[in-house]
Formats: sequence, C-alpha cells, structure tokens
Amino acid sequence: MNWLLPEHIADALPSEAAQIERLRRTLLDLFRVHGYELVMPPLLEHLDSLLTGSGHDLRLRTFKLVDQLSGRTLGVRADITPQVARIDAHLLNRQGVTRLCYCASVLHTLPASLTASREPIQLGAELYGHAGVAADREVIRLMAAALDAAGVPAARIDLGHVGVFRSLAAAAGIDAELEGTLLQLLQAKDVPSLREPCGQLDEPLRSALLALPDLYGGVETLAAAARALPALPEITAALDTLRQLQESLPDLPLSFDLADLRGYHYHNGVVFAAYCPDFSSAIARGGRYDGVGRAFGRARPATGFSMDLRELARLAANGTQGTQPGAILAPDAADTAALAAAIAALRAQGEVVVELLPAEMSSEGPRCDRQLVERDGQWLVEAITGMDHGNG
Amino acid sequence: MNWLLPEHIADALPSEAAQIERLRRTLLDLFRVHGYELVMPPLLEHLDSLLTGSGHDLRLRTFKLVDQLSGRTLGVRADITPQVARIDAHLLNRQGVTRLCYCASVLHTLPASLTASREPIQLGAELYGHAGVAADREVIRLMAAALDAAGVPAARIDLGHVGVFRSLAAAAGIDAELEGTLLQLLQAKDVPSLREPCGQLDEPLRSALLALPDLYGGVETLAAAARALPALPEITAALDTLRQLQESLPDLPLSFDLADLRGYHYHNGVVFAAYCPDFSSAIARGGRYDGVGRAFGRARPATGFSMDLRELARLAANGTQGTQPGAILAPDAADTAALAAAIAALRAQGEVVVELLPAEMSSEGPRCDRQLVERDGQWLVEAITGMDHGNG
Repeated sequence: MNWLLPEHIADALPSEAAQIERLRRTLLDLFRVHGYELVMPPLLEHLDSLLTGSGHDLRLRTFKLVDQLSGRTLGVRADITPQVARIDAHLLNRQGVTRLCYCASVLHTLPASLTASREPIQLGAELYGHAGVAADREVIRLMAAALDAAGVPAARIDLGHVGVFRSLAAAAGIDAELEGTLLQLLQAKDVPSLREPCGQLDEPLRSALLALPDLYGGVETLAAAARALPALPEITAALDTLRQLQESLPDLPLSFDLADLRGYHYHNGVVFAAYCPDFSSAIARGGRYDGVGRAFGRARPATGFSMDLRELARLAANGTQGTQPGAILAPDAADTAALAAAIAALRAQGEVVVELLPAEMSSEGPRCDRQLVERDGQWLVEAITGMDHGNG
Repeated sequence: MNWLLPEHIADALPSEAAQIERLRRTLLDLFRVHGYELVMPPLLEHLDSLLTGSGHDLRLRTFKLVDQLSGRTLGVRADITPQVARIDAHLLNRQGVTRLCYCASVLHTLPASLTASREPIQLGAELYGHAGVAADREVIRLMAAALDAAGVPAARIDLGHVGVFRSLAAAAGIDAELEGTLLQLLQAKDVPSLREPCGQLDEPLRSALLALPDLYGGVETLAAAARALPALPEITAALDTLRQLQESLPDLPLSFDLADLRGYHYHNGVVFAAYCPDFSSAIARGGRYDGVGRAFGRARPATGFSMDLRELARLAANGTQGTQPGAILAPDAADTAALAAAIAALRAQGEVVVELLPAEMSSEGPRCDRQLVERDGQWLVEAITGMDHGNG
C-alpha cells in the first residue's frame, strides 16, 4: 500500500489532465491577447521573500525546507501573486502599466476546506502601475471573460472594498486584537456576537460596524451604505469607486458585499469574488493590493485575480463529457513507407493515431473510433465496426 | 535584498516563459497525436512511495517535509517517471500497452551540475506493457521527433544496454561494493584505474570489463563488442537488440556507448541519450526500466524518455529570436462600442491588443508595432510610425 497518496493530494489521470490542459491553454491565450505576459516564478524561494507583504495565514500555509546550499530556510510557494509582484517590482522595473499572468501549482500545508486540494493549480492575471478604477474594471472584466471562456460563466460577482472597514477601525482607534476579532465576526456575518465587542465603541462607528453584515445585495446596497455609514473620506471614496464599477460593467452580474474582508491584510481597495452554480466557494477572486509592491521596496499600484484550475476543470467537465473526437488505430508502420506517410499526414492534421506495436491488439488508451486500412494499395481511414478490435 | 532567489533557482520572465510555453504545447501536442495521454501526478507524495524502485541518488536529491495531517514524511518529487509508473501500475490498471506523457516542475536539493537548475521542468513520454524492441524503437523515434519539433534536432543519439555490464558483473560474481567502484570508473572511462580492481577477476571477464570503455562509436562498435565480449546469453541478446534498433532507425544519427551506465540501478535494458551542439550534457535521455512496476507490486515492461524543458527552451531560443509578431495598441474602449467590437474581433483572431488605461501612454509590456486608429468612423489597424508612442 505504499502507493496511496497523502490526504488532499491527487493525480490527474488522462481525462482530467486533458481538461485541465485545454482550459490552461484557453485561459492563457485569452490573457495573452489582452496583453498579459506570461511569467513563471519558481516553486522555491527564501521564506522571508516569499512571505513579504503577506499575512500570518500564508505563513501557516507554507511548507518550509532547509537549503543545503546556503543553510537558509526556504518555502514552497503557497501563493503566486506575491511572486509576480516581486517580478514587477524588481525584475521588469518598468515605470508604466505592466500586465502579467501565470499558471502553476502551489502547495498548502493544510487544505483550505474539507474538499480542497493541497496542490491547487493557481491561474491568474495581475495589473501593476495603475491606481485608477479603470484598472480594477479591466481585471474584473478579464476574470468574467475567463470564466465565460472556460464554460463556467459567473452567476454572481460580489464586489467589496476593504477601505470601508479599515476607515471605521481607524476612526474608532481599535487595536490589532479587537480588529482581528471584528474581522472574524464580520466574515461570519455574526451580528449577535458583534454587539459585545462593539459595545465599547462610540456612535456612529458602533452602528456602522453593526450595519456592515447587512450591507450586501444589489446596487441598492450602495445607497444603503451611504445612509448607514459615516461620511468619512475613505468611505465616500470607496462607495464612489464601487458605483463607478457598477456603472461601467453593466453586462456583468454584479452584487455588493461590504463585509467580505477575506485577504484583508493583503488587500487595500476593491475586492471581488465570482460565484457559479454547483460550487459553494468563490471560483475566482481578486482585488487591489497596492501594499505588496511597497513591501518589496518599490511602491506600485496592483490589482488582479486568480482561480484554481483544478476546481475550474471539475466544474467545466460537466458540460464537455464525450465531446472529444476519437483516435485512429493503425498497424505497425515499421516496414511500410506508405503507411508511415499516411500516419504522419493524419498526425500533422492533429489526429491522434495509435500505432500498434507487434502483438498489441487494440488501444486501451485513447478511445479509437476509426482505423487505417489498406484498400487497393491505398491507406484509408474507416470507421471501426463492432467486429473490429477497437476499444480493448 | 529580500528578493534574491536561492542559488540555481530562477524566474522565467516573459520572453523565456513564452518560449517554454510554446515548446510545452508543441511537444505535448506531438505526444498526443502519437497516442500518449497526458497525466499530472502531484508535487508531493509519501517519501517511501516517491522513492519506490529508485536508487540512492534520487533519495539524496529529494526535499523532505513533514505532513501536518498525518505526521508522515513527504517528499517533493525530484523525478516524475516513477510517479507515472505508479499511475500505470495501480490507477489505470490496463493489461495492454499504455502510453503516457507529462510536463511539470521537479525540485532537486542540489543541482545536477554547476549550471543546472534545481527546478527543471521535466517533460517526457513513457510506454508501458510492451517488452519488445519495437517499444524502444517507438520511444527513441518520438524523442528524436520531439527534438526536431523543438528546433533542436539531435546531432547524435547514443545507445547503450545495461545488460552488458550487468551480465559481466554477475558472471564474475562481484559484490555490490566492487560493482559500485567499477560503475564509477567505467562512467569516467578511466581505464588505468580500472586495471587494479579488475586484476582479481578471471579471464575472459577481466578483459571484457577493461574493453567496455573503448566500445563506443558507430555501428562497427557492435561487431567489436561481439569480438571483445564473452558470448553470455544476456550479452548476445543485448547486442542483438542494439543491432535491430540500428537497422530499424536508419534516419537517426545513432551511435553506441556500451559504458554509458547512468541510471544503472533503475534501468534494465536499452538506454539512450540525445546530444546536440552548444550543450555538453545530454539534452534528452531515457531507456527501459521494467523493474519499477515490479517495485510497485505489478510487473510491467516500461520504456521512455524525458528532458528538461528549461534547457531545451534555452537552446531553441537561439533560433527564434524576434520572430514573434508585434502587438496592437488601442485606446481605452470603455465608452466606445465600435472600438470594443474592433478589439474583440482582433483578439478572436489571436492578435494581442493592449488597451490603454486612462493616463497610460504606451505599452512597456508586449512590443506594439501597430495601433487601432479611427478614420472616418472606422477603427483601422495601422503601423506605428516613429512619431507615435510605440515602445515605452
């Protein structure tokens, strides 16, 4: 039994791997034609570099190793976004807008949920060097286009803004510990439990914090927020940004959730999450994280999104079963130049041709629905009938 | 300076990443049309599973981790081939021929050479369930075709057979320690140093072992080997296999090296390595490893090859500089439906269109050599002239 895999770790066998690979190409091509350049940061970095600008959560999720060459502690990346921010900040060293994308495995010490993989395939796009709402708009549109292209269109895209809670917390002068408590309760939308820690705060901040969990829903949420929250400059600006996004993305299924604070220590502006049927978590999420570049010593506005290609492939698979064309079975062409030429021509057209080895009677691998047969000196592709050896 | 990477670890920035991605697709497509199905084994496995059937060398090269879920020792894979053998043996459970391929990162605790990466991108193809020379022939042809498709054709493909040394060692009854010493000296073709440990062996085995380092070169090597080596059944069979390969692959630049014993503890038959100009090591290598399936509890003949896509991309890059088409620069299309439609149509054709954000003046990312401009109400693609803002 030494071949059982660790929990929350799995092989992708041929049909799943083919689906992942198809989506990988489709989405990287989509990013490419939008001007996003592919980068491939490494699996391993010095731990301090890997965790620069990130929160405690990422530290716990990161596998640590010792470098035999330097004796230093290395980490296996648990998130690619900070690596891409490092590339933007220090390697490309561009002054203007930079668009980057990536697709690769990350490892998590513990799964994010009961059903999550500890080796997600993180696919994402990031836009650096533009602080305006137009940049957030671009990446939200690209996220929606990616889900459309994958055949898993977003049923709902929630927008939030971490500046709302941040400015309330700053105005109330609360400490880091209380801030952490409030964050957890807000995430859980646990209003009864919120009352107690908020009791010590002055009005109107207390009422504003207690109102946050109810500030979700359609565009009316923004008006409700303007009524329920104090007119602090950062709050006004945040609501204004959200309204601009809502107005400039009329074709997307936007809704709002001002208590969505996941990644709070990382994000500093608009945050968003896409949901689709048959999947309880967000299938893609992102937001603005201007602080990470600053942590790398070069302040750069940043916004982007990412998703787990394994989850996406599982959702997309529901719609694409059995749509792949079958392969062509061919005899061993070792000594038959005409057959070898026919096989090469078919493969050049993208057809899968399984060339049988001596004593190999049929394909147990790719499903073959056609075969190459010789008729009057010509090699022709014919359908495999029930009597022929087709599928092992 | 917290953004310096560990030694022998590097980012692939846009031009290198694009080259790697192009080759990845080209070669996986080549494998696919030959009937090889893609699989994606995980980065992490239980250490004992990961090292099943492999040698001491792989154990040293493998990073170890502790699983917080089980307390067991995990390894980050340093080689994908044993993982694919595990998939063939236990997951697919087919009786007949199975063709599988893969492309993913592996990690090495120490680099294989002074210039090697500790994170090679291992790309390979494996054929299970066929013990005949036809299977070795198929994978050698596929390896050569892959190098051709990558634009890095093999200048030389060395064939060897570990059965030659194995049968001499068995006939001489030498112990594991002496076997290890001889292996090292043979690999180094160090004939003077070989004389001493061989001195204790009887003829004709002593002369045969001393002759091995000289048994390399063209097809004449096989006749020389038949003269220099005793007619043990395994040696006769090995030379016969090599001759059959040579005769059935007349279009490949084959040569022979009977002292090439790399992977000796892993391989058990034909071994091969492809070389090309500008690269001193083998750019691809493989061979027969029937023993690995047995170690997984299900004996399956196996042969295949792999290569490092990073190295291949570096070699291929020499031939493809500047052949990529430039991108198209477009104004912000937020409020212009006709422009948005023109951009979408170009992107659907595979063109890269960089849509400028407000205050973004030019592309510092993809090189733009054309731009979308409005002429009499139509959006047209025109070349960027010197006076326009083209390249940052």
